[in-house]
Amino acid sequence: MDYERIVQYYETDKMGIVHHSNYIRYFEEARTYFMDKSGINYADMESQGIMLPVVEVNCRYKVGAKYGDTIVVKTHISKCSGITLDFEYTILNRDTGKVCVTGTSSHCFVGSDFKPVKLQKTAPQLYEKIKAIAELPQ
Amino acid sequence: MDYERIVQYYETDKMGIVHHSNYIRYFEEARTYFMDKSGINYADMESQGIMLPVVEVNCRYKVGAKYGDTIVVKTHISKCSGITLDFEYTILNRDTGKVCVTGTSSHCFVGSDFKPVKLQKTAPQLYEKIKAIAELPQ
Amino acid sequence: MDYERIVQYYETDKMGIVHHSNYIRYFEEARTYFMDKSGINYADMESQGIMLPVVEVNCRYKVGAKYGDTIVVKTHISKCSGITLDFEYTILNRDTGKVCVTGTSSHCFVGSDFKPVKLQKTAPQLYEKIKAIAELPQ
Amino acid sequence: MDYERIVQYYETDKMGIVHHSNYIRYFEEARTYFMDKSGINYADMESQGIMLPVVEVNCRYKVGAKYGDTIVVKTHISKCSGITLDFEYTILNRDTGKVCVTGTSSHCFVGSDFKPVKLQKTAPQLYEKIKAIAELPQ
Repeated sequence: MDYERIVQYYETDKMGIVHHSNYIRYFEEARTYFMDKSGINYADMESQGIMLPVVEVNCRYKVGAKYGDTIVVKTHISKCSGITLDFEYTILNRDTGKVCVTGTSSHCFVGSDFKPVKLQKTAPQLYEKIKAIAELPQ
Repeated sequence: MDYERIVQYYETDKMGIVHHSNYIRYFEEARTYFMDKSGINYADMESQGIMLPVVEVNCRYKVGAKYGDTIVVKTHISKCSGITLDFEYTILNRDTGKVCVTGTSSHCFVGSDFKPVKLQKTAPQLYEKIKAIAELPQ
Repeated sequence: MDYERIVQYYETDKMGIVHHSNYIRYFEEARTYFMDKSGINYADMESQGIMLPVVEVNCRYKVGAKYGDTIVVKTHISKCSGITLDFEYTILNRDTGKVCVTGTSSHCFVGSDFKPVKLQKTAPQLYEKIKAIAELPQ
Repeated sequence: MDYERIVQYYETDKMGIVHHSNYIRYFEEARTYFMDKSGINYADMESQGIMLPVVEVNCRYKVGAKYGDTIVVKTHISKCSGITLDFEYTILNRDTGKVCVTGTSSHCFVGSDFKPVKLQKTAPQLYEKIKAIAELPQ
């Protein structure tokens, strides 16, 4: 799924390009959007006591995005075990088609006590929903 | 009271200077430091159910701070009514002595339900402590 | 003019609402959008050697926006002297209609040497364009 | 080398812990500090036309740091080829000794045109300096 947004001034650094930490935030924006468009609202999920903290993140930088650029974040679920959930991302410059960064994030389902939960048991309906999304073609 | 810190790369923008929104964060850092050094730990205060959200902030920009600059944030309490608490800040470049920005922030004491509280009643000891700090010479 | 966007997770703080410094960034986003939709691309302007740093910012906080909220930033030019340019903002929660914050920002036209310029002289066409926008009804 | 700093309020998110993107910024802070204490000022390096953009970053999250925590970032150079430079980081809670995150960053030496340079040729003295630091015991 494609999430589009414009690079903001405050996201650039003195090198004149987006600061590398901000792509991690773009991943999060795209993940929220992807989940929401797939019928899973993360804010609702959290208010039901299930959180999805990040356990690992990886980002490889190719071409820096610039202020005013429109970027597209392509997101898909690469794996869902019910205990963990993994995403893959590619961020492109919409107008040049060039890849800015590629990356992954791994997450773990936890309860409000921050202890891991097995989604199949804790929230079977949510688990089935995510499983179905994970199997969609990219 | 003086709070010193170094300007980070991720705080600059493509103009080559600190992004203007970050000085508001420097005010917060200095405020926390000031309170802590004066014997009031904000994290403790919050865990006792008293929060101090910002109700107004003002910042006037003079000379932009650069990556690697050491800045000094001078902070003092300008007013404490027990319902509200006001701070004034001056941020200087430590090495040139030039003023980067000046600013103010106004805060309101609230309970964990976000409703305003009168500190004199809710936490009289804390009130007396803040009053004493407010009266110290700058 | 209305600029709409969704509150991101990374913009919240431990109080559970948007960190107060981020509204200053929302102002910038809305300002860029407003200028762009009015026919003035800020990135282009900068590449022509005219920058518009912030000289003062003010923000009054009413109701904190939450993760997932859709906010609307209403922006208009309150004054344009050709040396300075002032904006006013109101940020609303789109769904409740409640005002989150109101604020202002003042800017100064400068050249690539950071020295102030008089837009009437330096870029008369740009000046006329901004003047025309400033006179539009809000 | 150890770099110590306090977790700020604006770095937390609604989960009540440091937002995961901020550890990438802590890595940068620690890297700058490490280089500086080892006799290499990154701001100076940049003003001589050599930049060191990030080409890959990895972060594994263990225990979330909280507002007010003092964290220690342990940093060392894991590899320096003269074309690339790799760092490894461990962030600990100073008081509990628990590991918050571990991570790595890979960098590439580039000129002001963003084209890769071979440090041995472009800046042999700087190369020797970094080589010497890389060989120090952690």
